Amino acid sequence: MRLLLLLFCFGLSTLSLQAEDGYRLWLRYDPIQNTALGSAYRAQLGQLSIGPDVDTTQATLAASLLELRNGLRGLLGVELTPARISVGTSGAAGGLRWKRVGEDEVAREGYRLRQRDGQLELAASSNVGFLYGTFHLLRLLQTEADLKGLDLLETPAKELRILNHWDNLDGTVERGYAGFSIFNWHTLPDVLDPRYTDYARACASVGINGSVVTNVNANSLIFREDYLEKAAALADVFRPYGVRLYLTARFSAPVELGGLETADPLDPAVIAWWAEKTREIYEHIPDFGGFVVKANSEGQPGPREYGRSHAEGANVLADALAPYGGIVMWRAFVYNSDPEADRAAQAYEEFVPLDGKFRDNVMVQVKNGPIDFQPREPFSPLFGATPETPLLLELQITKEYLGQGTHLVGLAPLFSEVLQADTRQNGPGTTVASTVSGLAGVSNVGTARNWTGHPFGQADWYAFGRLAWDPALGPERIYDEWAAMTYRPESKVRSTITEMLITSREICVNYMTPLGLHHLMATGHHYGPGPWVSDLSRPEWNPAYYHRADSAGIGFDRTVTGSNAVAQYAPEVRAKFADPETCPPEYLLWFHHLPWDFQMDNGNTLWEELCYRYQAGVDGTEWLAIKWAALEGEIDPERHAEVSQYLTIQQREAEWWKNACLAYFQTFAQRPFPDGVTPPPHDVDHYRSLDYPYAPGIRPQW
Amino acid sequence: MRLLLLLFCFGLSTLSLQAEDGYRLWLRYDPIQNTALGSAYRAQLGQLSIGPDVDTTQATLAASLLELRNGLRGLLGVELTPARISVGTSGAAGGLRWKRVGEDEVAREGYRLRQRDGQLELAASSNVGFLYGTFHLLRLLQTEADLKGLDLLETPAKELRILNHWDNLDGTVERGYAGFSIFNWHTLPDVLDPRYTDYARACASVGINGSVVTNVNANSLIFREDYLEKAAALADVFRPYGVRLYLTARFSAPVELGGLETADPLDPAVIAWWAEKTREIYEHIPDFGGFVVKANSEGQPGPREYGRSHAEGANVLADALAPYGGIVMWRAFVYNSDPEADRAAQAYEEFVPLDGKFRDNVMVQVKNGPIDFQPREPFSPLFGATPETPLLLELQITKEYLGQGTHLVGLAPLFSEVLQADTRQNGPGTTVASTVSGLAGVSNVGTARNWTGHPFGQADWYAFGRLAWDPALGPERIYDEWAAMTYRPESKVRSTITEMLITSREICVNYMTPLGLHHLMATGHHYGPGPWVSDLSRPEWNPAYYHRADSAGIGFDRTVTGSNAVAQYAPEVRAKFADPETCPPEYLLWFHHLPWDFQMDNGNTLWEELCYRYQAGVDGTEWLAIKWAALEGEIDPERHAEVSQYLTIQQREAEWWKNACLAYFQTFAQRPFPDGVTPPPHDVDHYRSLDYPYAPGIRPQW
Repeated sequence: MRLLLLLFCFGLSTLSLQAEDGYRLWLRYDPIQNTALGSAYRAQLGQLSIGPDVDTTQATLAASLLELRNGLRGLLGVELTPARISVGTSGAAGGLRWKRVGEDEVAREGYRLRQRDGQLELAASSNVGFLYGTFHLLRLLQTEADLKGLDLLETPAKELRILNHWDNLDGTVERGYAGFSIFNWHTLPDVLDPRYTDYARACASVGINGSVVTNVNANSLIFREDYLEKAAALADVFRPYGVRLYLTARFSAPVELGGLETADPLDPAVIAWWAEKTREIYEHIPDFGGFVVKANSEGQPGPREYGRSHAEGANVLADALAPYGGIVMWRAFVYNSDPEADRAAQAYEEFVPLDGKFRDNVMVQVKNGPIDFQPREPFSPLFGATPETPLLLELQITKEYLGQGTHLVGLAPLFSEVLQADTRQNGPGTTVASTVSGLAGVSNVGTARNWTGHPFGQADWYAFGRLAWDPALGPERIYDEWAAMTYRPESKVRSTITEMLITSREICVNYMTPLGLHHLMATGHHYGPGPWVSDLSRPEWNPAYYHRADSAGIGFDRTVTGSNAVAQYAPEVRAKFADPETCPPEYLLWFHHLPWDFQMDNGNTLWEELCYRYQAGVDGTEWLAIKWAALEGEIDPERHAEVSQYLTIQQREAEWWKNACLAYFQTFAQRPFPDGVTPPPHDVDHYRSLDYPYAPGIRPQW
Repeated sequence: MRLLLLLFCFGLSTLSLQAEDGYRLWLRYDPIQNTALGSAYRAQLGQLSIGPDVDTTQATLAASLLELRNGLRGLLGVELTPARISVGTSGAAGGLRWKRVGEDEVAREGYRLRQRDGQLELAASSNVGFLYGTFHLLRLLQTEADLKGLDLLETPAKELRILNHWDNLDGTVERGYAGFSIFNWHTLPDVLDPRYTDYARACASVGINGSVVTNVNANSLIFREDYLEKAAALADVFRPYGVRLYLTARFSAPVELGGLETADPLDPAVIAWWAEKTREIYEHIPDFGGFVVKANSEGQPGPREYGRSHAEGANVLADALAPYGGIVMWRAFVYNSDPEADRAAQAYEEFVPLDGKFRDNVMVQVKNGPIDFQPREPFSPLFGATPETPLLLELQITKEYLGQGTHLVGLAPLFSEVLQADTRQNGPGTTVASTVSGLAGVSNVGTARNWTGHPFGQADWYAFGRLAWDPALGPERIYDEWAAMTYRPESKVRSTITEMLITSREICVNYMTPLGLHHLMATGHHYGPGPWVSDLSRPEWNPAYYHRADSAGIGFDRTVTGSNAVAQYAPEVRAKFADPETCPPEYLLWFHHLPWDFQMDNGNTLWEELCYRYQAGVDGTEWLAIKWAALEGEIDPERHAEVSQYLTIQQREAEWWKNACLAYFQTFAQRPFPDGVTPPPHDVDHYRSLDYPYAPGIRPQW
């Protein structure tokens, strides 16, 4: 045994020949360094007794067993010996046991992990429960948890835990900062990139159970026979991992692909076309999940073109899907270009009157805030406001507005903030989490070797899955797990990384859009600051529409003296937001246009506070770099160097944001920079002149 | 020692936990399986004596030492112990020795590897010679060569061995089938992806010493200060590996970037602009290689717009570069849209009259054939026809016209065919290889984990470098090396893979464009067959322009009765090509329009022969699949499965090519399909109706 261990450690040093490229995500399964703990784990996990009704020839159970074997081989150097046991027996003492139970004991998708009579028992009622339980067990080992006295029952809080890929059929990714799409439609269905399997594994490891593989700016071609075969090949790869495939539906597909003259949802030919197309889809993908639809939004076709409502549009698709158990996820992200309207109010105005008019298998998918994935927004007033319409919470994992592919910004605090926000729509404690039926996250993965480009982008994928499974999980706990699994389960490593991730979101808010400011980014690619932009054709595309800075002050008055969008919130919430004295400073300029000398609670004027916040953001990026530098030698040099290089960009761009925004706002405020705030080295014309035509994340232009 | 070996082998099995993803290319350095040979190598290579004047703190020598250490650690489990020795001593007997010699003994870039007094001596006059010699030594080990009696002297046949990347600043790659560009201009100069280093290593391992990192369809922005800093960061990474950085120059840059009113090369302000810009480039990149220019070609700007010649255009850039030792590589790929002209004749017509008018530091870069990288073309008549103008041979490594990213087609036979072609321009033996000063290869690498998408695409990169170093190398030898290094040095593996690669090019010619046919592909993306296309705005963009099929026959008459382009060849070559009786069948329809019943040497009519060739191409893809299937279990399962999947695509698409082309040509030939040829299952309208808007390799369209 001692020799075996020695051999095992030697194996480790050989492994290190292979540079750490990040491909393995948090599922690295490198040998556990803690010898005592390793021995204890080996003692517990050398044998697997497989109970009756657990048929490991079934795909999901086979995948579970494979994962367990690979995990234990990597972590412990153990070659697992599974043994089938019969009814009434319990298998080898001291081992692991898989036990099938009824849904009354453990709900579908859930699992129970507990010590019992010296055995570690994994019990589940569904195959995927064994898979999720296996990943949980491996996570316990990877995070060096104590297995003694283990007794836990896990059930997902939400049934729908879905990734949305804004991936185009030509391989590009809208708002993707990690290369091309991982889905290669050209070589599907023949080439089954092992990455497809590893993608599904990673999703399953955090409980994600659905994937929308096409962009919400949709393409009808996905419904063509040959593309359905490609989609079916992906679905076949995902299925063992409990990941259902969904597609985006372009509302005009009956015209573009079907050759009809209209896509009017009440036209019988259109209804028949969707029914037949849906039948064809299910012929290829028997467990197809359903459609996501972006309709009458940013130029996408929709029912309004035919004088029909969003409900009438959604229902025709819902009726087509209903016989097969599919659902429609209809996005509430709509706004028009009325200069008199407040964009923040429009989704609510459009969808609340439709409450009750949707079919049972329609869900309305609502972005976390009323605008568009800003570094901070108050929660959307739609949450809790449509008692008869199930909602999905849409979060953006890809960081379109939070530094894109190069900034270290942990999103779990943002996700958790909105999930825990109390809408008060049904009394105190009506959190956003409690009002939604599931979570949809706009994915940040691409063909980068490490999936996400910035190594810490992986943490956002991880956090999304964990929070979709259990919205009550604390961001600290999630990041502590991720850091231990992805880097090392050593205390300084995990605590430093956790602290960096937790703090980074507020740092980003400060250097980009403090105090409730929003939508200050440059046009098109959204890369970098552009608060001065005010000449775009649609008023609500201009940053100036949102910050409304003038000589009198700054901010968007959404109270009764302004757009009164605040009235869409429940009375208690409305009252708090509507009064600048009670409005939390982080939402202050979201709801109020205030004079530059407005007195903040801390005694600063608004102008001073704005300056200090921007400065704090910049200082925060320096703090991040110092924290990270202290981990040199504690983790692999490849990923340490990589993150350091990205931190250099983040520091420079944080300064850019601060300098550009303060130089610009000072032209209105006409006040000096307070002590402790480094004045911008250039005037605003310099920042306006900067030009980055090839910033990533948008359709490449010639 | 025995224990060490045991440990080493255990390490190996642990390593295999890491799935084979192809990232390591042919530089895998996995442990040598042949025990006896491993022992012999270990006996020879445990120690390194470093002679005087070999300063391993210099970057290239440090890189050589690092490579040697990593290689020997991986291959042999040896931790190399380098020892510095002084003048007059020879270091430890039985070891390896690095010895600096004069250029009279070993030319710059060259090296000598020989056994001497029990030592293996690597001698070089330049630092990069040690690097190349190190890679050669490691290759000997990887291919399990005998080191006994080793005595070889290697000097590159050509000074310029350059990759051209058709990579755009937005990350896309024109005619790239392996993802985005490996050069991430957005995150440069801060993020130095380890891939940049591994790219340079791979180039150096096959002797490639230059890299043009931007597309020939050029973008002036690359000359902006911030982009020059990015380019300089890449050059810094490449430099230790002997790889010089080059950029493409957009002829209109003085207008677009410089704000001048003209780009007329004789305008003093334009001359001054190029001089100043070049000075600025060398400030950033002291060893900058020079410019590649595509001018007055396919819409690119050039000197002709100002009534100036290509020579006048090239010379202004050459004068700017001359003080720093830089060169201009001016592409001869020009053609206009004159329906009376023969596109195949135009480069010669344009450039031969300019011979002698270029500055000394201008090279004219000529594609291998007169048209555009077709599966087979006769060599360009420009080779050997410009005695006063040095030429570069431009080859396409990316397979725009040979199945793109999914077909297994080894290009070494194509490259070698053109290199060995005898132009007779200066008597017998005036091979193309002998007429050129260097080779430029259009790269096929991208962000795919394995660099090239199709695993066998790596072999083309490898073969290009090896042939640029030594054009006389046989394709079999090159592929044997590649197979042994990339897969396994086991006899069945290397011989099977070599045979597949060698044979595959002719298979591809047969299923796409047999008997000298050319340019039959679909429009735009060039994916799949489109022989029927005849309605494009420019006549010479239409396949019908090239095949000229009609009821009388098929082929392009380039003899005196036609375009007479054949007259551009030297008399002996011209005579052979001009007569259908002596013209090799592989060029028959390139030079002749022949009746369907033309009698081939083998007794078949032309129509029959055409049918048989297409069928042979299809049959060949089946043969490839059978050969590959026989390697199951002999190599890692990951790459075996991957290649098998691609072969499925190739078989299907070979049938598509054959069926589409034969169905189309039969509409003219009006003859039955001969026995043994499977008739197309559909008529030509079916094949015309197929539509693949998102085939890769072109700028994505919305």
